[in-house]
Amino acid sequence: MTFPVVGMVGGGQLARMTHEAGIPLGIRFKLLSDTPQDSAAQVVHDVVIGDYRDLDTLRAFARGCDVITFDHEHVPTEHLRALEADGIPVRPGPDALVHAQDKGVMRAKLDAIGVPCPRHRIVSDPADVAAFAAEGDGFPVVLKTVRGGYDGKGVWVVRSAEEAAEPFRAGVPVLAEEKVDFVRELAANVVRSPHGQAVAYPVVESQQVNGVCDTVIAPAPGLAEELALKAEELALRIAKELGVVGHLAVELFQTRDGRILVNELAMRPHNSGHWSQDGAITSQFANHVRAVLDLPLGDPRPRARWTVMVNVLGGDYPDMYSAYLHCMARDPQLKIHMYGKDVKPGRKVGHVNTYGDDLDDVLERARHAAGYLRGTITE
Amino acid sequence: MTFPVVGMVGGGQLARMTHEAGIPLGIRFKLLSDTPQDSAAQVVHDVVIGDYRDLDTLRAFARGCDVITFDHEHVPTEHLRALEADGIPVRPGPDALVHAQDKGVMRAKLDAIGVPCPRHRIVSDPADVAAFAAEGDGFPVVLKTVRGGYDGKGVWVVRSAEEAAEPFRAGVPVLAEEKVDFVRELAANVVRSPHGQAVAYPVVESQQVNGVCDTVIAPAPGLAEELALKAEELALRIAKELGVVGHLAVELFQTRDGRILVNELAMRPHNSGHWSQDGAITSQFANHVRAVLDLPLGDPRPRARWTVMVNVLGGDYPDMYSAYLHCMARDPQLKIHMYGKDVKPGRKVGHVNTYGDDLDDVLERARHAAGYLRGTITE
Repeated sequence: MTFPVVGMVGGGQLARMTHEAGIPLGIRFKLLSDTPQDSAAQVVHDVVIGDYRDLDTLRAFARGCDVITFDHEHVPTEHLRALEADGIPVRPGPDALVHAQDKGVMRAKLDAIGVPCPRHRIVSDPADVAAFAAEGDGFPVVLKTVRGGYDGKGVWVVRSAEEAAEPFRAGVPVLAEEKVDFVRELAANVVRSPHGQAVAYPVVESQQVNGVCDTVIAPAPGLAEELALKAEELALRIAKELGVVGHLAVELFQTRDGRILVNELAMRPHNSGHWSQDGAITSQFANHVRAVLDLPLGDPRPRARWTVMVNVLGGDYPDMYSAYLHCMARDPQLKIHMYGKDVKPGRKVGHVNTYGDDLDDVLERARHAAGYLRGTITE
Repeated sequence: MTFPVVGMVGGGQLARMTHEAGIPLGIRFKLLSDTPQDSAAQVVHDVVIGDYRDLDTLRAFARGCDVITFDHEHVPTEHLRALEADGIPVRPGPDALVHAQDKGVMRAKLDAIGVPCPRHRIVSDPADVAAFAAEGDGFPVVLKTVRGGYDGKGVWVVRSAEEAAEPFRAGVPVLAEEKVDFVRELAANVVRSPHGQAVAYPVVESQQVNGVCDTVIAPAPGLAEELALKAEELALRIAKELGVVGHLAVELFQTRDGRILVNELAMRPHNSGHWSQDGAITSQFANHVRAVLDLPLGDPRPRARWTVMVNVLGGDYPDMYSAYLHCMARDPQLKIHMYGKDVKPGRKVGHVNTYGDDLDDVLERARHAAGYLRGTITE
């Protein structure tokens, strides 16, 4: 059979779950992982251990792959261009991926195509941050390093010029953004293939705790159909204009005055799409694989009225197995997704999905399970 | 984390799909496979290539596993006893598994516990077959080698003593059974754990073509609730009385006069349960893993009104990829499960699942996709 080989760079849980989704598709999956202990490296057959920052390693890995895709956005753009020059399809390609790697480039592009964003500009020092604040509603202001931040890392909310010193210490460009007065955060997940087919998942509500995604509700409760449609169209337009291939997550603010503004972009399967594993006809992982192989995409519609995902973070107790057993016994409908990672306090080590007709019940079940696994609920 | 290691003997598609189901459970999965090309060996990280008939190989494989389970029923009973003597949990254990390995032992046990079976006895030669026929309604009679048969292999339907010579040539015991006048075949799938928890999947209709499973409809259309309940209770009772741990498939005949008779038993995930991957809250594969680890079992109830599974057999054309692409484009809701196997005419290389409210539509979609992949439908 001529079923293709998908090479994925990065051995985290996104690669683990992409491998899982690729098994029924009959594709071959090859992994470039930092260490043999990485989440995906434990479960994938064909694993290369190596450093994605090294071009020779990447090139050797890419040989024999029909397409290269990613668990994360950290591969240097010039390496991706080198792979493309070697004739290896890289999806998403470097011209698209740079918008998920560099928040400055992303904001400039979204401005250019007329996508609503928080007020923003690149700032040079604390005095410039004060000037930026004065141009709008004053402090607080959000500062972000343009590269390398995630899960609240590389992001600061500052209330004065004095507080704005730290982000500049690393010597990398810093983006200032207005602190948006939002009602809640939403995410619009879409998948696009090279031949231009695209599908949109229902817009979800995403609840963060300490800058880390905690709970996702699909679809976003009480979201006006008009706004949901607008968010889906926005995400589809961004995917097209930026030339994204594969999964694109558009993180959004829903403002108090009824607008939606783009917060972040991610060009890979995303935490806000994990609900789709058990809640949609086709999961984000399966559709990402289908997209990067230019296969027809699967139906993204929900299978249940409500699906809730809650992340499982590590707590103080390193062994989750007995808690895991308890959760299975308490709720035979619970869908647990463990990543095979060592437990460290605050580390994402898994997630749970629940679904059903009654949102309160679905939320309670997911929160209880995640809390019990973490050790913050002891019944 | 102390998440356990499940060792599976046999590298076929059942192991492949069990691995897939084990990934979200966070367990470690270890495989003993005949060749590196086997279906599961392509996708499992920790693969040992070796012969399951060799006790030293089995012993070395079992070291470091918390439990041993099976993709097939061919491991010699004495080897399983040796592993148990070494202190390795074997699930299902040899005392249970022998009933799926030896049809003579199975029939004797089912008789002893009062489970309805076709009329049967061990026969010694063609003349004895004629005597067996004369004791009942005459020919035709079904002859089966007591060990080693599957998918129609090792099974003969004979219309005379003269036709009955072949089954005796191998010199192994032969079981004669009445040819049951059945309306259709059903399967009752249950999963049982060591602590005695058990769950029953809805009883399905199983349609065979040339002795090979072709289509499974869940639940069995038009099956009287009383008969469905009887079949589920029968399967649960067999699992308990035989001490089965893990998945048990009870293949049944529904007779023209409204009885159900046990045809075959399988103690592993089974073709008649593949629909559960996309059609049940918890798949047979996930529940098999949970059972062999003595974890609480997941909810076996259906997620859709109707789910249909159709096997994809190899046709004359060895490359299915373009047909596969066509099927995805035609039906974005289609769930394809490919096994990574080379296409040979008549060989099971995958299956498709469809689900929905309209059985005719669900059946048509699954049959079309499987036929198109095989090459018997060209649109």
